[in-house]
This record gives sequence, structure tokens and C-alpha cells, in this order.
Amino acid sequence: MFEAHFQTFEEPEGGVALTARLSAFREELARRKLTGFVVPRADQQQNEYVAPSEERLAWLTGFTGSAGLAIVLSREAAVFVDGRYTLQAAKQVDTRAWNVESLVDPPPESWLAKHLVAGDRLGFDPWLHTSAATERLAAACAKAGAELIAVDSNPLDSVWTERPAPPLGAVAVHGPQFSGEAERAKLGRIHQEIARLGVEALVLSDSHAVAWTFNIRGADVSHTPLPLSYALVPKDGRPIVFIDHRKLSNSARDHLEQTADVAEPDALTPKLIELARSGALIALDSATAADALSRLILAAGGKPVRGNDPVSLLKAVKNPTEIEGARTAHRRDAVALARFLAWIDREAPSGALTEIDTVEALETFRRDTGALKDVSFPTIAGTGPNGAIVHYRVTRKTNRRIAPGDLLLIDSGAQYEDGTTDVTRTIAIGAPTPEMRDRFTRVLRGHIAIACARFPDGTTGAQLDTLARQFLWQAGIDFEHGTGHGVGSYLSVHEGPARISKLGTTPLRRGMILSNEPGYYKTNGFGIRIENLELVVAADITGSEKPVNAFETLTLAPIDRGLIDLNMLSADELGWLNDYHADVRHAVRPHVDEATKVWLDDATAPLSL
Amino acid sequence: MFEAHFQTFEEPEGGVALTARLSAFREELARRKLTGFVVPRADQQQNEYVAPSEERLAWLTGFTGSAGLAIVLSREAAVFVDGRYTLQAAKQVDTRAWNVESLVDPPPESWLAKHLVAGDRLGFDPWLHTSAATERLAAACAKAGAELIAVDSNPLDSVWTERPAPPLGAVAVHGPQFSGEAERAKLGRIHQEIARLGVEALVLSDSHAVAWTFNIRGADVSHTPLPLSYALVPKDGRPIVFIDHRKLSNSARDHLEQTADVAEPDALTPKLIELARSGALIALDSATAADALSRLILAAGGKPVRGNDPVSLLKAVKNPTEIEGARTAHRRDAVALARFLAWIDREAPSGALTEIDTVEALETFRRDTGALKDVSFPTIAGTGPNGAIVHYRVTRKTNRRIAPGDLLLIDSGAQYEDGTTDVTRTIAIGAPTPEMRDRFTRVLRGHIAIACARFPDGTTGAQLDTLARQFLWQAGIDFEHGTGHGVGSYLSVHEGPARISKLGTTPLRRGMILSNEPGYYKTNGFGIRIENLELVVAADITGSEKPVNAFETLTLAPIDRGLIDLNMLSADELGWLNDYHADVRHAVRPHVDEATKVWLDDATAPLSL
Repeated sequence: MFEAHFQTFEEPEGGVALTARLSAFREELARRKLTGFVVPRADQQQNEYVAPSEERLAWLTGFTGSAGLAIVLSREAAVFVDGRYTLQAAKQVDTRAWNVESLVDPPPESWLAKHLVAGDRLGFDPWLHTSAATERLAAACAKAGAELIAVDSNPLDSVWTERPAPPLGAVAVHGPQFSGEAERAKLGRIHQEIARLGVEALVLSDSHAVAWTFNIRGADVSHTPLPLSYALVPKDGRPIVFIDHRKLSNSARDHLEQTADVAEPDALTPKLIELARSGALIALDSATAADALSRLILAAGGKPVRGNDPVSLLKAVKNPTEIEGARTAHRRDAVALARFLAWIDREAPSGALTEIDTVEALETFRRDTGALKDVSFPTIAGTGPNGAIVHYRVTRKTNRRIAPGDLLLIDSGAQYEDGTTDVTRTIAIGAPTPEMRDRFTRVLRGHIAIACARFPDGTTGAQLDTLARQFLWQAGIDFEHGTGHGVGSYLSVHEGPARISKLGTTPLRRGMILSNEPGYYKTNGFGIRIENLELVVAADITGSEKPVNAFETLTLAPIDRGLIDLNMLSADELGWLNDYHADVRHAVRPHVDEATKVWLDDATAPLSL
Repeated sequence: MFEAHFQTFEEPEGGVALTARLSAFREELARRKLTGFVVPRADQQQNEYVAPSEERLAWLTGFTGSAGLAIVLSREAAVFVDGRYTLQAAKQVDTRAWNVESLVDPPPESWLAKHLVAGDRLGFDPWLHTSAATERLAAACAKAGAELIAVDSNPLDSVWTERPAPPLGAVAVHGPQFSGEAERAKLGRIHQEIARLGVEALVLSDSHAVAWTFNIRGADVSHTPLPLSYALVPKDGRPIVFIDHRKLSNSARDHLEQTADVAEPDALTPKLIELARSGALIALDSATAADALSRLILAAGGKPVRGNDPVSLLKAVKNPTEIEGARTAHRRDAVALARFLAWIDREAPSGALTEIDTVEALETFRRDTGALKDVSFPTIAGTGPNGAIVHYRVTRKTNRRIAPGDLLLIDSGAQYEDGTTDVTRTIAIGAPTPEMRDRFTRVLRGHIAIACARFPDGTTGAQLDTLARQFLWQAGIDFEHGTGHGVGSYLSVHEGPARISKLGTTPLRRGMILSNEPGYYKTNGFGIRIENLELVVAADITGSEKPVNAFETLTLAPIDRGLIDLNMLSADELGWLNDYHADVRHAVRPHVDEATKVWLDDATAPLSL
């Protein structure tokens, strides 16, 4: 009945075959007189989703998480992952060949300090690391008396004989009805930033920045409509978009050529060298530009100026068309969510459903809108103990039956042309325990504290993060992830530079869209997360002494009332919940079948203390 | 009846005489072939309170605030102050000779960029600036094509003929009953830090660090028992304390010589040069070490290693003796505060009292404890519009009569040998307006949110700051200062490195003492601040999944119940207030006269919704 078109549930490969790959790789390193090599989970642009041709880490180690790094030395090999992936990595890699180590604290550089010996030659591919990451590696090597060697070609690619070809997803024009601002106007604003930086040219090394600037979308990686590409925007003269011509229809090429020259990707290097020869200052995005770009600019006599890509902030502040698109996308998504939640409520108590069933059903309800382009990330559907794995992704092997007494955590999102969504709901199957209700209510109060926050213009996400955690901290518990991330407009569901986290130093500006997703995870027990997307808007306050902002909640889906301990809520918090549910009902009711209407009326009925 | 021994109320000088000083200074600069000079409000150690011999900024400009900078060019001159002091500076300096400019955002470097011309020679005294500050000045000069010149002797001192001699306050031993840890044990911990830094020696350029390490106190500056001094702690061998021998009694010298050699301050330079000649790495505190120290180490062939003084963190974490001392000091202070508040309540409604009367009375009540060594800073007593001046200090000229309808803000503190206090109360004289009660209640709710916060070990002050502001932000208002600062143990009332502020990146550790002082200031209207000191302690939480901390409130003084709008408080907040008032009553009642008892019982009686 339901099926997923945009998601699969296969186990990654693992075990013996991969160990043979490691041996072959070590032989290749020996041939190249390297005693070690660093294999990041990265493509040339530090993308979150990478093309199959870039999945070097998974191919070599079996580890399929979205962040990680392997270091292969002649004597040993380690896979470095963050706290989200410790359990997953231990299952996926052959632990006879690999140690699983910490990616963040301590970082791989600490491991290198212990395992490198003087005279070691550690190779790395400068196209797959930023300059900051390269500097950290270089410092670790220097400490140990080892040498860090930038290779011209990646030795892993020499042994990866069945490596897929790079993707050739068709480029589509992202029309003004969605983008809200013509390329020429965007380029005008980028030129102001280039003048402010005082450079000759800006390299857009982030395909998201290229997509936003030139109003194009693509299909090169999963779940993000990304056209893999680069652009060079000079202070004067026409910009150049570097993109494989096979991705361009005539109309897409015509569109690009209205404001830019179009060249093949391999023309980027000679173009940068030509520009750098005059000693030009060239701005690079420190977050996404490969160290190889800095190297070739320097080698040609130019000066790389590393910093925050100014397009990142321009892109994060949505214009009125994008904002209206986001509201429409969320109302559309709300209909699919209501049908899904009603279906769960009807079907789950029998104990017949599995996690995969829910993923397939939710995607199907979203496809029924007729507007779904993709899911915005693989749905996280974890029931019982699987809910406590923060970045859980169900496979046929881990797939769990949803049992009465479980909490089911579902985190999902959609890519629509008018907007990207991301929503998490936690649903009690049958009667929850008092502990579950206590934890859920603390998470909900944190969620409401963010939703109701007002904050002076200039306030950062770091300043708001604690509002989401305060009620958990009172009980001696917490969640080990940020409270919220930026979200793109039919682009990446994880978009910088703003975020709600103790590390979020970017001021939240009106027009930004961020997630609000506090949670609680009881290892081997259950997981709770409540996530809505929030739009930063001007707060309307009588007597306000300064410009103050607030959040407008975009996501419209009932929050499971059976999980709330009403005694723990203040009158204001209950008022927020009832108002929110009234908004959900009002937006969804006209667009659903009779059975869903009945469910919706019940699920959104006002509560009182 | 009442009088102040530790505080005066004189206006600083100003006007014509000072303009003559500026002319003399400019002539001296011309003699030295300088086209400008930078005069910071600083001594050689960046102390908050400086000796009269170091008050160069006040002597030259008339501005007496605790932070500021003057830049004199041949064509113009400017005094740079932060937001706290804008009004005060405009009153104190002769604005025909000086422009008043921003100290922080934009910084003086922006002004320099506009006013320096190529070829200018800007002088500065490297003993009065940190290296970081010097680098900022140097960058500003470089941009303008000007030269920054470190002078060997300060040209201002050449024209300041009546300059006072440096202070010679007697040094006292801070006994184990107060310090709780012997010098030898402290040096053992400092040696571990020196080993961790991998340096040959650590320079204690902060007299507070010297005082803490060697368990001495002094009397060289106002309000802080600081013995101006330096120390050099080598990796191996005996440390050296550099201090004027005239400050040392035989017993103080004997005490120091148990763990250190004692030398004159002018021996520091040759000693550092001797050590640096071998190419040694020498650790300097980036916050307090004069740029001159870096220069002389570099010139001799050594390597200055700038960073956070490790003693700063050791000192901030109070040991059990210091903690018990702080509790005792606050109970003692509470008696003086209750007598004072009762007196105000009795006397103020007649309209006869002035701000100075209250300062004199409060100091007198504190002296009555028999234990007062000094006030910990000049009392801020601002009634009506004066309360809105955040760092107001009353003088005979600004002294205002306390009128019915006023809010009176009193921020004060004491230095006792067992602990330093700092407390602010806001008192309604007669009936407050609804606006005053609304604002006061929002400030109180923020204060309670901090007092009741629980937070995982490792949480920084930046993560807590918003809890204090959230209720003000809801009304579109805020306060333009940090929520809290660290406090020393019979040392500085403003002590790093931890603070509760969006800039507070130091984790709050058990044993730290911090102020909790949200406020609200209505320009030309009134000021509100509620300040208690809080001790970081382990939180006792059943089922806690991680180490969690909480605050124990040290300050014990009634909060004006007549200013609270009870309808705005939650049940939990009201519970906190009633519990707090019960603690105050319990601690103070046995130690006060009958009239104060009657007042206290009323002021601390439980409230109900």
C-alpha cells in the first residue's frame, strides 16, 4: 500500500570484503612511499550529502554515517566518529582491522600524536579537506616529527576499481515565483560584499551558494536539490559558473548565460591560476573551500583571503517570496502529517506496524500532495530503544515492530519547490509511563520557551539555547545535540550560518528559518524530540525600547497530548499549546478526509489545567 | 551621626586648569618629536582601582570613571568611554578641548583610522598597555601610515609636577584561618600548571595572583586589599616576590621568605632579562602583563608565552575555608543591611534624607560590625533619575534628596577578612507606579531564574545569562551590563575569569562565587537592580544522569515586597521568595535590636498569591 521512492532500507556492506580493500589500500600507500593516509567523509565542497563517487570512507570502512574520518597507518587504522555514531560505527566496521575513536573531544590529532612516529609520511588529498583542517593535521604531524604530504591524486581512487561515475543530475531553473529575487539583484548584493572585503574576486566553493545566486537547482546528491558546481565572481566583469555541460538543458544554459559565463568544472583551476598570477586577493569560504584551492592560488602568486562566505548570510535571510513559500509548503506538509498521525493512531495499537512501515506511509502521504520533490533527509523512525539513537536510520536488519508501551520518534522532512520542511513528533503507543510523561513535558516546556522567546535584534542562537534545556537541567538530564539549525529554501535542510546552540555566534535575523528541536534520550529505553521550524520575525511589543524579534512557528502538526503532564505546565504554556493546536486545526481541517477530521478535532481539542 | 571613612563625595577637578595641563602635555610631546600620545586609565597591572600616582587620565582630562582612554593628537584630543560613562564624561571633561568618543563599539582604533595622517608618530607607554591592546594600536597606525612608538619614559609624568608618590601600604599576612591553603600547597599546584604549559617560568603580573599565592594582603589601592607586587615562579627553584621592602614588617618578610626570595620591584626587569638570555619560554598573563614585559623578554632572546594566568582559575575556585568565611561574612553583612534597610524605611518617607546620608549610614552600620576593613567599592546610591546611571557615584554636587515616589537603588559591598560582599537593593519610597512594579517584578523573575538554575558541570556563564533577561525581553526592554561577575575572597569584588554574561566562556565550577544582578534603567526616570552573591555548589537531584551544579545564595537581605506585582509571579517563584526571606529572618533576627526585629518580621513575612 505504502512505499518509499526516495529512501531505502538496505544494510551497508561490511566485514571480510572490506578488509581486503584495506589491504589493497595499504599496498597502494606503500607503492607511493606513504606510511599513512587520511580519508575524510567529504567531497570537494564539504557537502552533507555526497555523491556515491565520493563515499570513500564508507567504501573503505563500512561506516556510513554523515560525519567521520579514517586514518590508515601501516601498523594500525582507526575510524573517528562523533557521539551520535559511536554505536553505529562499532556495528558497521570490522573491529579486528579498525579501532573506533573520538572525532571531536579528543580530536583525531590527539590520536595522531600518539601513533605517528618520527619520519612517518602521512598523505592527504587537499581537495577533500579545508585549509583549517589541513593546518590541524600539519600541526599534529610536526609535533610527532612526521611529514604531511598533499597528494596529486587520491591513492584510494586507484584501488577503488568499481568507483561510480560522478552524478549528472539535470539542472532546473528556480523561477522567480519561488526565489523572489533575480540573479542580477543577488549579484549586485554580492558585489557590495566583494567591495567590502576589498578582494579581486570571490570563489563560491559551496554549491548551495551557486544554486542560490544563480537561481538554479539540481539533482546530484540525495535529498538536497544541489547542482554540484563552482562559481567565480570577479569584482568587475561577468561571473563564471563551472558546471558539467551535460547537466544543462538549453533552457538552463540560456538562463545561466543571462548573467554568467558557463565553463566546465576543470576550467576552475586554470582560471584561478590566471587570476592569481597578478597577485590578486581572492576570497575563499573557510567552511567549504578545499585546501587545494588555497594552494593553487598561493603557488600562482595570489593571496587567498579566507573567511565566511558572504553568500551564506544573504541566503539565510529569506525574502518575502521565500517566506510565503515556506508558509505554503508547511501548510501542505501539515495535511500529510495529519493523515500520517491519524493513521498511526489507528494502526499502531494493534502492534502490527514496523518502523519501515511508518517511513513508507509518511513518504506516501507526502507524495499524495502531488508536490513532493524528495524527502529532505532519510526519515528517522525509532521506536522504543531505537528512538534513543539520535541519528538512527532504520534498515531491514534493525527494523523494529512498534509495540504498545513504546514511544515512537519520527523525524522527517520534505523538499517542495516552495520550501523545505523538517518536523519531529514523538507518539505514545498505548499508555506512557510517568517517567515518559515527565520527560516529554520537560522537552515540551523547553520547546515552548524557544517558540515564545522574544529577543533583541542582534541576539545569537547561543543566547537562546539554554531556554530549551532549563527544565531538563532541573532534573539532571540534557540532550547532546544543538537545539536548532538553519533551514534552506528548497535547499539544504541544514543550512548555516545561524543555529541555536551554545556554539551559535551568528545573530538571528528576521527572515531566517531555524529548527526548534529539544529532546531527551534514555539509552536502551526511549527517545523524545519535538521539532518545529520557526521563522524569525519582528516582535510587536507596545512600549518596546529597542527592536525585538520573535519566532513565528511554521510547522503545523498536533503534539501528542497524552504525553503531557498538565500539572507541570504554566497557564502561559498551556495557552501556547491550545493556540498552536487551534492553528493546526484551522490550517488542516478543510483539506483532509472525514476520518482524519475526526482524529484531528480530538488531537487538537483545547486542554485545561 | 553617620559618617563615611572609606568614601568621599568630592567633585573631581575640571575646566580651565586641566586645559592648561593639556597644553603643557602637547608641548612635551612636541619636544619629544611625537605627534600624539595614548593615555589609558591603567597602571602597570591593569588594576581596576589604581593608586593616585597612576591616575594620569583623570589628571589630564578630568574624567574619573574606572575605564577609559585619552588620545591626544596635535590637532585634536578625545576621551573614550563606554556606555556607562558617556553622561559622566560629558560633564567632567572640558568639551571645548576634548571630544567624548566610544571606547568599545566602535573602538578608539576606528577613531585613529580617521584622525591619524601618514607620517604621524603616536607614542604610548608600553608599561600601561597589554600586548593585545598594543597590537590593536599598531594595526591602526599601520593602516594610516603612522608609526606607533613605545616610549622609555612617560611624557605625561614629565609635566605632572605634583604627581603623588607610589603607595606604600603595609602588607599583612592572610592567615590560614582565612586562606584555607598554605603557600607551599598553592605553589605545588602552580608548578603543575607550569609543567602543563611547558615553560621555564611563570610571571605573576597580577598583584591579586601574588596576594593569593603567598597569602598576603596589602593597602596600596582603594577598596581592594592589594599589595602591589610581581612574582616570578620558575619551573625549578624558589620563586621571587618583587615588592617594595618599605611595605614589609619583619613578620611579613619572614612569612614571605618561608617560600620565596624577596626583591625590590626594579629587580624584575634584570631578572627577566637574565632568564630570557637562555632562550627560555616565559609564561605571561595576557590580561594583565604589560607589553613592556613581552618586549624585554623578546629583546633578551627569550620567548614570551601569552595566555590565561593559571592562578586566575585556581583563585576563583574557593576552598572550604574560604567558602565558610564567605558565609560568615555575609551573615555579618546581613545584620548591617537589615539595620540600614529598617532605618531607610523609617527615615526616608519624611523626604529629609539625601543619597550621601544613605552612603554614610550604610558604611556606619557596617563599621558597627567591628570587622569592616573597607568598602569593596564606592557605594552607588542613586535615587530617582540618578538610579538610572548604572555606575553612578554620588558627589556633593549631584547629591539628591530622596523624595516620596522615588526608587532608591543602593549597590554596596564590604571587605571583611573572611570574605568580600556585594549587594544591591532597590527600595520604593512611598507608593511605586504600576510601571515600576512591572519592571521590578521582571527583574526579580530574572534574578530568581538565575538563583534557581541548575546546570551541567561545564556550563558557562554565557549559557546562563539569558535566563536573567528573558522576562525583560518579553517587554522589549533589557539591561546593558553583564548579569554577574566573579568575586574574590577578601580580594577584588570583580574577579575573573568566570562571569555570567554573553561573553562568559569560562565554565562555572563548584566553589566559584558570582554576582547575580539583573536590572532595568529608565533614563531620566529610575533604576532597578537586585543583586545577591551566589556560590556554585553541587545540585542534589535524584535520578540525575550527570554532575549538575546549582547556586547557593550567600547574600541575606530583604527584597522590597512593595515593588512586586504578585500576579506576575509563578508559584515556584513566590516559593523561592518566601524561602529566601525566611532564611534572611532566621540569620539576622538574633543579632538586631528590637525595632529592627519588628521591621524584619514585616519585611520578610511570607506572601501568598
